[in-house]
Amino acid sequence: MESDINLGLEDVFIKHTSLTYIDGIKGILRYRGYDINDLVSNCSFEEVSYLMIYGELPNKKQLDEFTKELKEHYKLPRHVLSLISELPRDSDALTMMETAFASMSSGEYSWNKENDRKQATKILGENLGIISNIYRHKMGLRLKEPDPKYGYAEAFLRNCFDNVTEDEINAMNAALIIYIDHEVPASTTAALIAASTLSDMYSCITAAIAALKGPLHGGAAEAAFNQFLAIKKPENVDSWFEDNIVNKNKKLMGFGHRVYKTYDPRMKIFKSIAEKLAITDDEKNLLKIAENLEDLGIKRFSSKGIYPNTDYYSGLVFNEIGFPVYTFTVLFGFSRVLGWVAHISEYVENEERLIRPRAVYIGPGEKQFKKIDER
Amino acid sequence: MESDINLGLEDVFIKHTSLTYIDGIKGILRYRGYDINDLVSNCSFEEVSYLMIYGELPNKKQLDEFTKELKEHYKLPRHVLSLISELPRDSDALTMMETAFASMSSGEYSWNKENDRKQATKILGENLGIISNIYRHKMGLRLKEPDPKYGYAEAFLRNCFDNVTEDEINAMNAALIIYIDHEVPASTTAALIAASTLSDMYSCITAAIAALKGPLHGGAAEAAFNQFLAIKKPENVDSWFEDNIVNKNKKLMGFGHRVYKTYDPRMKIFKSIAEKLAITDDEKNLLKIAENLEDLGIKRFSSKGIYPNTDYYSGLVFNEIGFPVYTFTVLFGFSRVLGWVAHISEYVENEERLIRPRAVYIGPGEKQFKKIDER
Repeated sequence: MESDINLGLEDVFIKHTSLTYIDGIKGILRYRGYDINDLVSNCSFEEVSYLMIYGELPNKKQLDEFTKELKEHYKLPRHVLSLISELPRDSDALTMMETAFASMSSGEYSWNKENDRKQATKILGENLGIISNIYRHKMGLRLKEPDPKYGYAEAFLRNCFDNVTEDEINAMNAALIIYIDHEVPASTTAALIAASTLSDMYSCITAAIAALKGPLHGGAAEAAFNQFLAIKKPENVDSWFEDNIVNKNKKLMGFGHRVYKTYDPRMKIFKSIAEKLAITDDEKNLLKIAENLEDLGIKRFSSKGIYPNTDYYSGLVFNEIGFPVYTFTVLFGFSRVLGWVAHISEYVENEERLIRPRAVYIGPGEKQFKKIDER
Repeated sequence: MESDINLGLEDVFIKHTSLTYIDGIKGILRYRGYDINDLVSNCSFEEVSYLMIYGELPNKKQLDEFTKELKEHYKLPRHVLSLISELPRDSDALTMMETAFASMSSGEYSWNKENDRKQATKILGENLGIISNIYRHKMGLRLKEPDPKYGYAEAFLRNCFDNVTEDEINAMNAALIIYIDHEVPASTTAALIAASTLSDMYSCITAAIAALKGPLHGGAAEAAFNQFLAIKKPENVDSWFEDNIVNKNKKLMGFGHRVYKTYDPRMKIFKSIAEKLAITDDEKNLLKIAENLEDLGIKRFSSKGIYPNTDYYSGLVFNEIGFPVYTFTVLFGFSRVLGWVAHISEYVENEERLIRPRAVYIGPGEKQFKKIDER
């Protein structure tokens, strides 16, 4: 019995999927067969959302209909904004996201392909208002509904900031697409378990956020960015690396991945965006630090299959767009909501089996009960 | 690869445990070695809480200290009551519980045995205020803090109702103990996944509630009770059984369990309490219906190892105490919070391994990207 234990569920296959294909040796990532580079270069987040939800890229008419439906859901249920504003401002951003999604749960939900697609679209629309208003609440700004005049990435940025450039909108669109899905990490697995009891979609996402919050899961982009901040200047990189990575054997944040043993294809995209958006001296300075550190990291670790991952440059991009570091993980979650709804819909539609593992009992045998005075 | 897939994680062992021992053939349930019958007959919920958290039953001094600490946490953080009152009154009770726990998440939490015990005690105390105020909010009553003058079961009932009898307090205490833990069902598994990323305890519980909500997991007590209501009179049981169970092959709610192939020991306890608390004609009527239906169910199904489970009589008990049917599942969750915190603490203290299963890719191979005008 003991020998059957699968700690961490490593190499345990929990579902079938047609969503995401990863080749960690060649550094390939595809959503439903399409290379991530093609999608980021050519598509709006709405197009890729349609792809994930409906299984194929939309034609013009399909995209127009989908976008119209999505925009109808930019508006949040009445209680959600007041709920967000009730939360202590120093709660972390993921706590706010978790609370908002929990509160929107319907209690009952009827799973079937048609409902699932409608519900997924509704959730994506609402998600925009939730995340932008979490940003607003944390910044002490008055909460407000997103403007349905704009496409997804633009409506999001315009609900956060007063001024938004075309480059920033394109960068946000790319970041949204890049983080959509990555098979079944812990957060997605938590969502699947809730889905397997036929709980509703909002609760499944709530479970996923609860798992994403852990420092072993989300948070890598923040950690990588804070590392660049700590180094302060490009000329400090060599000595910092020597002190911390070589001598103290600290972990190089933003390097290494369970799946990729080469360059993470998502990292390359984020790097090129970070280069394009670096305008101020501070931004150029951080970029130079990151690039120098990447070179040293590659020299030292690439022979072991350890390369920079997607979170290495994403923080720079979010920072260049204008987001503070404590929002990086919730921005990851913002995008990943689409992957979660796609996975849970796929799970229920394909397999619909209650997830119920077992535990190995290693506790005491039968004990004689004694009343409290005899203990 | 395909052959390794473990849908539902059936017979996959996800952790070690010293908490709960179940013998489904003999109908035995023990918490940390002590028989459930001994614990229910002799202990307060506080004593069993100490047992689950500290590993052994407390002596008088230990219990006094623990109870004092627990009572300090009857008071909720300031934002939680206003948050509950913001939620639409027709949200289901588990949605309210999920939202309250999500909102209390600290964002960061340092896992170690000492912290875990303190945090578990804090959560148990707060849980009392959360669940009683969910009841109050749904009933349209003014929300209020529990009174630390009383022990756990009594403080809970007194925060729900104006008048409470000794028998009702004893019944609530027993129900709390009975539902504390049952190894690793889906809800506990969801909590473990969040714990495996080192998320904080509140978020782990939030994930568990998200899974408990599904009709394939929680909700059996409500379903069994609604079935008794539908039968209306004891003299209808025979014809109802013939029509629905024999002819239409419907599922007999509150019967059958993945683990127990004999009488569930918890069901016997609930049955004796339900008998003791049945005072009004309505209560006696429902009890008679349940007993008659049990007899028919046993005659038909016991040869297949299908017996009444813990949820068969628990709804009668909750109803006799004075709770409406839509609170039965949240009352289950109320008690199970203790099992969840015990399991997640045990997981992190013993194994601390990120849970990351895999998915079998069955989607399309590489697809040629076409721009939207060419689709």
